Amino acid sequence: MQFDLSLEALKTYLPLRTEPADFDSFWAQTLTETRKFDLNACFTPVACGLKLLDVFDVTFCGYGGQPIKGWFLLPRDRNGQLPCVVEYIGYGGGRGKPLDWLLWSNAGYAHFVMDTRGQGSSWQVGDTPDLEPEGSNPQFPGFMTRGILRPETYYYRRLITDAVRAVEAARANPLVDKNRVAVLGNSQGGGVSLAAAGLIPDLSAVLCDVPFLCHYRRATEITDANPYNEISQYCRNHRDKIETVFHTLSYFDGLNFAVRANAPALFSSGLMDEICPPSTVFAAYNYYAGEKQIEVWPYNHHEGGSTFQNIERMKMLSRLWQ
Amino acid sequence: MQFDLSLEALKTYLPLRTEPADFDSFWAQTLTETRKFDLNACFTPVACGLKLLDVFDVTFCGYGGQPIKGWFLLPRDRNGQLPCVVEYIGYGGGRGKPLDWLLWSNAGYAHFVMDTRGQGSSWQVGDTPDLEPEGSNPQFPGFMTRGILRPETYYYRRLITDAVRAVEAARANPLVDKNRVAVLGNSQGGGVSLAAAGLIPDLSAVLCDVPFLCHYRRATEITDANPYNEISQYCRNHRDKIETVFHTLSYFDGLNFAVRANAPALFSSGLMDEICPPSTVFAAYNYYAGEKQIEVWPYNHHEGGSTFQNIERMKMLSRLWQ
Amino acid sequence: MQFDLSLEALKTYLPLRTEPADFDSFWAQTLTETRKFDLNACFTPVACGLKLLDVFDVTFCGYGGQPIKGWFLLPRDRNGQLPCVVEYIGYGGGRGKPLDWLLWSNAGYAHFVMDTRGQGSSWQVGDTPDLEPEGSNPQFPGFMTRGILRPETYYYRRLITDAVRAVEAARANPLVDKNRVAVLGNSQGGGVSLAAAGLIPDLSAVLCDVPFLCHYRRATEITDANPYNEISQYCRNHRDKIETVFHTLSYFDGLNFAVRANAPALFSSGLMDEICPPSTVFAAYNYYAGEKQIEVWPYNHHEGGSTFQNIERMKMLSRLWQ
Amino acid sequence: MQFDLSLEALKTYLPLRTEPADFDSFWAQTLTETRKFDLNACFTPVACGLKLLDVFDVTFCGYGGQPIKGWFLLPRDRNGQLPCVVEYIGYGGGRGKPLDWLLWSNAGYAHFVMDTRGQGSSWQVGDTPDLEPEGSNPQFPGFMTRGILRPETYYYRRLITDAVRAVEAARANPLVDKNRVAVLGNSQGGGVSLAAAGLIPDLSAVLCDVPFLCHYRRATEITDANPYNEISQYCRNHRDKIETVFHTLSYFDGLNFAVRANAPALFSSGLMDEICPPSTVFAAYNYYAGEKQIEVWPYNHHEGGSTFQNIERMKMLSRLWQ
Amino acid sequence: MQFDLSLEALKTYLPLRTEPADFDSFWAQTLTETRKFDLNACFTPVACGLKLLDVFDVTFCGYGGQPIKGWFLLPRDRNGQLPCVVEYIGYGGGRGKPLDWLLWSNAGYAHFVMDTRGQGSSWQVGDTPDLEPEGSNPQFPGFMTRGILRPETYYYRRLITDAVRAVEAARANPLVDKNRVAVLGNSQGGGVSLAAAGLIPDLSAVLCDVPFLCHYRRATEITDANPYNEISQYCRNHRDKIETVFHTLSYFDGLNFAVRANAPALFSSGLMDEICPPSTVFAAYNYYAGEKQIEVWPYNHHEGGSTFQNIERMKMLSRLWQ
Amino acid sequence: MQFDLSLEALKTYLPLRTEPADFDSFWAQTLTETRKFDLNACFTPVACGLKLLDVFDVTFCGYGGQPIKGWFLLPRDRNGQLPCVVEYIGYGGGRGKPLDWLLWSNAGYAHFVMDTRGQGSSWQVGDTPDLEPEGSNPQFPGFMTRGILRPETYYYRRLITDAVRAVEAARANPLVDKNRVAVLGNSQGGGVSLAAAGLIPDLSAVLCDVPFLCHYRRATEITDANPYNEISQYCRNHRDKIETVFHTLSYFDGLNFAVRANAPALFSSGLMDEICPPSTVFAAYNYYAGEKQIEVWPYNHHEGGSTFQNIERMKMLSRLWQ
Repeated sequence: MQFDLSLEALKTYLPLRTEPADFDSFWAQTLTETRKFDLNACFTPVACGLKLLDVFDVTFCGYGGQPIKGWFLLPRDRNGQLPCVVEYIGYGGGRGKPLDWLLWSNAGYAHFVMDTRGQGSSWQVGDTPDLEPEGSNPQFPGFMTRGILRPETYYYRRLITDAVRAVEAARANPLVDKNRVAVLGNSQGGGVSLAAAGLIPDLSAVLCDVPFLCHYRRATEITDANPYNEISQYCRNHRDKIETVFHTLSYFDGLNFAVRANAPALFSSGLMDEICPPSTVFAAYNYYAGEKQIEVWPYNHHEGGSTFQNIERMKMLSRLWQ
Repeated sequence: MQFDLSLEALKTYLPLRTEPADFDSFWAQTLTETRKFDLNACFTPVACGLKLLDVFDVTFCGYGGQPIKGWFLLPRDRNGQLPCVVEYIGYGGGRGKPLDWLLWSNAGYAHFVMDTRGQGSSWQVGDTPDLEPEGSNPQFPGFMTRGILRPETYYYRRLITDAVRAVEAARANPLVDKNRVAVLGNSQGGGVSLAAAGLIPDLSAVLCDVPFLCHYRRATEITDANPYNEISQYCRNHRDKIETVFHTLSYFDGLNFAVRANAPALFSSGLMDEICPPSTVFAAYNYYAGEKQIEVWPYNHHEGGSTFQNIERMKMLSRLWQ
Repeated sequence: MQFDLSLEALKTYLPLRTEPADFDSFWAQTLTETRKFDLNACFTPVACGLKLLDVFDVTFCGYGGQPIKGWFLLPRDRNGQLPCVVEYIGYGGGRGKPLDWLLWSNAGYAHFVMDTRGQGSSWQVGDTPDLEPEGSNPQFPGFMTRGILRPETYYYRRLITDAVRAVEAARANPLVDKNRVAVLGNSQGGGVSLAAAGLIPDLSAVLCDVPFLCHYRRATEITDANPYNEISQYCRNHRDKIETVFHTLSYFDGLNFAVRANAPALFSSGLMDEICPPSTVFAAYNYYAGEKQIEVWPYNHHEGGSTFQNIERMKMLSRLWQ
Repeated sequence: MQFDLSLEALKTYLPLRTEPADFDSFWAQTLTETRKFDLNACFTPVACGLKLLDVFDVTFCGYGGQPIKGWFLLPRDRNGQLPCVVEYIGYGGGRGKPLDWLLWSNAGYAHFVMDTRGQGSSWQVGDTPDLEPEGSNPQFPGFMTRGILRPETYYYRRLITDAVRAVEAARANPLVDKNRVAVLGNSQGGGVSLAAAGLIPDLSAVLCDVPFLCHYRRATEITDANPYNEISQYCRNHRDKIETVFHTLSYFDGLNFAVRANAPALFSSGLMDEICPPSTVFAAYNYYAGEKQIEVWPYNHHEGGSTFQNIERMKMLSRLWQ
Repeated sequence: MQFDLSLEALKTYLPLRTEPADFDSFWAQTLTETRKFDLNACFTPVACGLKLLDVFDVTFCGYGGQPIKGWFLLPRDRNGQLPCVVEYIGYGGGRGKPLDWLLWSNAGYAHFVMDTRGQGSSWQVGDTPDLEPEGSNPQFPGFMTRGILRPETYYYRRLITDAVRAVEAARANPLVDKNRVAVLGNSQGGGVSLAAAGLIPDLSAVLCDVPFLCHYRRATEITDANPYNEISQYCRNHRDKIETVFHTLSYFDGLNFAVRANAPALFSSGLMDEICPPSTVFAAYNYYAGEKQIEVWPYNHHEGGSTFQNIERMKMLSRLWQ
Repeated sequence: MQFDLSLEALKTYLPLRTEPADFDSFWAQTLTETRKFDLNACFTPVACGLKLLDVFDVTFCGYGGQPIKGWFLLPRDRNGQLPCVVEYIGYGGGRGKPLDWLLWSNAGYAHFVMDTRGQGSSWQVGDTPDLEPEGSNPQFPGFMTRGILRPETYYYRRLITDAVRAVEAARANPLVDKNRVAVLGNSQGGGVSLAAAGLIPDLSAVLCDVPFLCHYRRATEITDANPYNEISQYCRNHRDKIETVFHTLSYFDGLNFAVRANAPALFSSGLMDEICPPSTVFAAYNYYAGEKQIEVWPYNHHEGGSTFQNIERMKMLSRLWQ
């Protein structure tokens, strides 16, 4: 069912955007602090039976210098430095196994997959714990309200910082062409890509599909689906903390990253998506400051275009990196 | 529907119990380490419009010396020291507000309510964060798999230690008669009560209703209901860590606390309870080493006896403390 | 999900109100007839282990002189007459046990809890049967369509009359200060409070939370949730009696009581409440003729403000009765 | 899913039967009392566009002399007195319209359809209210717990008495051959047929399909489906009245009627029937004292054999009444 | 819940209608081709215990000359030729047994029931397979996307052609008055009736209740209910074939048949119908070119008026055919 | 929930196996007839942006000579003939896009993916229609009851024949080492693999995960999950054709193929799998005549081991084909 705004309305939907005055300094300071820790990106070869690829187990220091895992895959048969796709993962999933990540190396690129701290037990397994700082708060099960009472303690401060560092780690690998790095992801991975695009000035592209982490207030009002619903549930119980919650979230809203981004972008949205409703995606898309394009899938839910979208992504990267 | 064993079979159900060799030393060491931190129990009076009670906001140092919140309520009109009921809360809930806790003080006792670290956003709100130690692991949303790969990092190590310290904090209050302290709770609160009864040698009573945290392996095999299902989901994804998970859980299984307990106990079970299935409750009850009694509610689910059970509890305490 | 009108629209929502010409005479005659029977309010002390309270089992004659049960609780330690809170219960529940009703006596007031005729088997148990008069009709399971084909035989005629008599019974108790009586309830209890406020001219306050029994036609059109859905189901089958049904209901609509009420009122509404949708609550609130205030809980369903709302209620009564 | 006993086990399933000592006198007295009221069966012709049938609106005096509605249909083109099928209706339904009842008159018989007191708002509409006697009790929505605390006030006492009187009313019609009257029904109609067969000594046949009202205790333990679940819900809340409830039900259990019946019987059961589980049906069937036969539908739920079963019923009546 | 447009809006709802240029020639050619095959209507008497009716097993050649089954029932006691009702069946059902079809012959008419090719395994059984032509396509389970990539191969081309031939087969029976033939059906049967009414110039009436097969695009956007959802699911997966699908469907849209029809029509709609949403029904009704009337059932879902609607249908036919 | 037999019982579960006397001749004749048509395997290169692979669009003639689609992928950089994995797809899915099939070519093998006739609209899209032969029957939506009244017309006769021909088509490709061909699939793909293993004498291996199409009678009795439920639904309605249905299915039961197979086999089963319950899988496994091994996933549903299982599969093939 197409339960959200009509496609007509979506195309021009520009809701009020709430941006805290210190948005930029918050992020500048966050990144500065983390960059005080050595990046320390290690790439250890692993044997996993894939004859056409070289695969590496990755560790690098993310937020607060904490070790973040990942995979790095690239064609065994290659010439010179390769463009690199940095991928972020959907909510609840972790880096899984190398077998789970064959597309982008088969397309001829280097592929850097970042594990998601704390996540990776709901579907694809993860290997990176999340260490909450002191000063955090009780939370609704999941990651959406972890530390949500202060921007400083909020989970996504750590995850987005990891994401920025992941690009730096990819660029630190001598097999990668530093000037040709794109970020990419579905759902949470799409939302994190968008954040990365707002924080990193020189990306080749951002491919964010059915992105999560956008326009939180509306999302929590129009859908009961998880994971936005974790925020609703928190507010349902902590009735006196609703404004605090949305103040924190304003530091992590895709709309605020979108206006700062400049890389060419490919978005997508399913018009029946109850998890990341189309109006939250279009809000980010319509605010997006760079060159942009959006694939609309009228009969799709959160799966969006799936393989059909991957084909569009491949075309775009091939166009950019030919 | 009565989906579990028949009442006949339940009454004699004594499944194999898995106890790690170092169970006692694990707990001895855990408590010793925490007791190195000052208990530091503070009771600050709060005004909340309750004319018949004195109410105190409590803070004490629990596991690792971390501050744990609570409420302490007792009749305003009283003579001398009072027996005290220490209460632990069901899964997902926190200490809420003093208004939520009127029964035991109205019954004439002191009432110490311990907040549950990290929880308190799913129904009744909480005020105590949980600080995970380094060395933890990714987790399925919720608290059941927080740090589950090692007994040292498991969430319930911290919570049960808090529970033991809560009894000490209650006893530290001069208005309380140290020799007349009972522990009590429903569901998770019941499971934690049972653990406390296995770790504290001199309780007056343990009232554990529809207790959770018992006989994990069977629970995860016969019910799909949360919160046991969080463990099943973790195992569903981390297919290679199942034995590690159940090894950790053996340090936290109500069956192993039951064989060590000695206080008179009142259990209860709903024969249609899919959340804490009756066979998991009876397994703990049948192993319970002290004097004991169980109320069986044939047509009840996890709500068990509710007010009918409270009436039984009041009778028992009144008998013990007359 | 906020599925109803926006908060903006709710604030000024004044739908067409359908009031039968003989509304006042219908109720005047109903009360006159019932008052021909002796009120015969009996208060019998009961022992239930509550040390701080005096508790009485109540019987009084309600509609048609039929015996209605209740509880009466007040502080054991008291001085002179006390203000009294008369409470009506939510749909499906009965008076339960005295343990279930500790708040208002602990706040220092007398507390009169009226049992709900016929109800009290769906959650909290009741002790009062409902005797249907001759001339009633087949009905959809539940109480919403009991006798619905004529205002004279409709269930809520009896229940609301009981509610008016309950206030009279409370006032008949010499421990109660007749000039300081408030009515209060959630959901059905809120709807009945509102009706009482429209029929009793000298109440101190009406505290009606997430009130039911308001704006039936819209309710049956915008929600599938019970209990409004019982009416929809009846109309679904008795296709030829829809107008008869809504004619009967117009004698029992909170909107029509609201315009007649004068006591200071505290309402509340959950913006995600599918059971008593916010537009049905605001319709009553906006029509309410007395001094008024409403608490809006944006992320709450039918539970509304719960303890947070109780705190607001305590503040209001404390202000009124200081 | 075949969730109940295997077909092998069903065939010999003879559970303990609980029969109160005064079962026979209870029913003898009940019928005697009702027979003090005139039967007063009226048959008023109605025009409803059915060209092949004569249709009559029926009223007769059932339990307590209360007026019970029905339909009487028979072939317009007929010779002499006809055998008659008396039909009872499934739970929640009423007599509906004449159009709803074409089968048995088209098969060449007279057809007497008894309305179900109080019911007839959940699917097919009814026209007969149920008047509860004084001394009844609060009830869970529906008819299963109406007056359940005493056999004298229980709803099914009234309904079964109506059923006996319906046979008498049918026989009072001069168009009917008194010696060839069968009773028939599905689900509740089947259970009532069985009761009628246990109370009326000279029926031609009883055709009871997927009968309800049999072996209550087991039914409430093995299924969560309504309407047996209404009893479970009542017991879930009225935790102190469970034995009272089942004592009352023992006067209304199909097993106790089955051992008293003598008419040739055709039963049926769906092996996947969660509403009237096969073991409750087979318990009645296995105890049935007359000549008997059962159709088993292995892949059917509560719909049983439907038209396929009607074909079997037609064959049986045709054999008996040729 | 009334989830679609308001009744006010429905009454004037005239959405854009998409009609392919060759709509008429497509159907002319389709019928011409099929009429090249002999109709070959056979009526074989069957004995099924119905004393008032003559019943015939029907076979006639439908689309592509394929044999289509049916039943033909009429009063045994009759004079001269009778008007005839041709009935089409709802989605998933087949012709069942003669016992399932008693109404129209009891009303004094001949009744021709057409089996639905391929269907008849979801509720009422069928006896007619559907033979797909070469050039068809993979399909979502069900009949909605069978051959949907080309109008020539689409399932409903065959079914609607059968429907036209069924009228011809009925008229071929000498017991039928050719000038008094009506078509009738619920849901899919209603949609097919409407199509027949658009393709057959001389029908007495069309009675189409809660008709399916109308205004597909809107239907797939506003409801998730089957069977429209089969189309949505197909489009969800075959993301590149959406326009092809709706192009095919434009040859089978009730709106396009409605503008061509001329027989007096009786429609009906349930305002809570999620299966055939009222706006899709009103779109067809508002475009209907003949004399027309619509029954609106405000609290009904897809069951619409049921027996209440049958009474209206009988009145209309009786008026037309008196 | 582990709803089926215990692991202990599963390990020795050998239910009665029903094999028609002409099982072998049925299949011999079926294959002979199909082999009369030219295999006509065409491999057309396609460009799809995969730099490491050569990809071919495949067409070959399957059952009845009908064209069946597929993909053929292999490493671009290769030496000599490669071993080949022939893969069959799970229920409802089709061959999708080449991007969907990267694993086995990356493991260094040739990979032949067979499209599934008629399927490919429920998740991954397909491109091959299914042409039913004359003499088929009405069917429940889906493929399980297509032509089920006779072995000759049953859908799986065609699909399994396609599967045998797919192996022949793979072997017809000169890039493939004919002596090293394995068959593989999940769910329906697993069931079809097992059938292929029973019909092809010289396979290197069969890897059948959570196989479907085994032990139909039990499956339809113990689970309500699709697709086995399609058979139950058919039997629910076609009450007189149950034995006919199971007679047909006996020609297509994995148990009967298992006793004829000889290739080394790797099975897997999820102990919580409601779709292909473990007892149906173990029945096939226990009857399997070749060398065999089974991976048991205790907390998994139908997803089984997923990537963990792929790792086991890779190990097995690497061992066999080193």
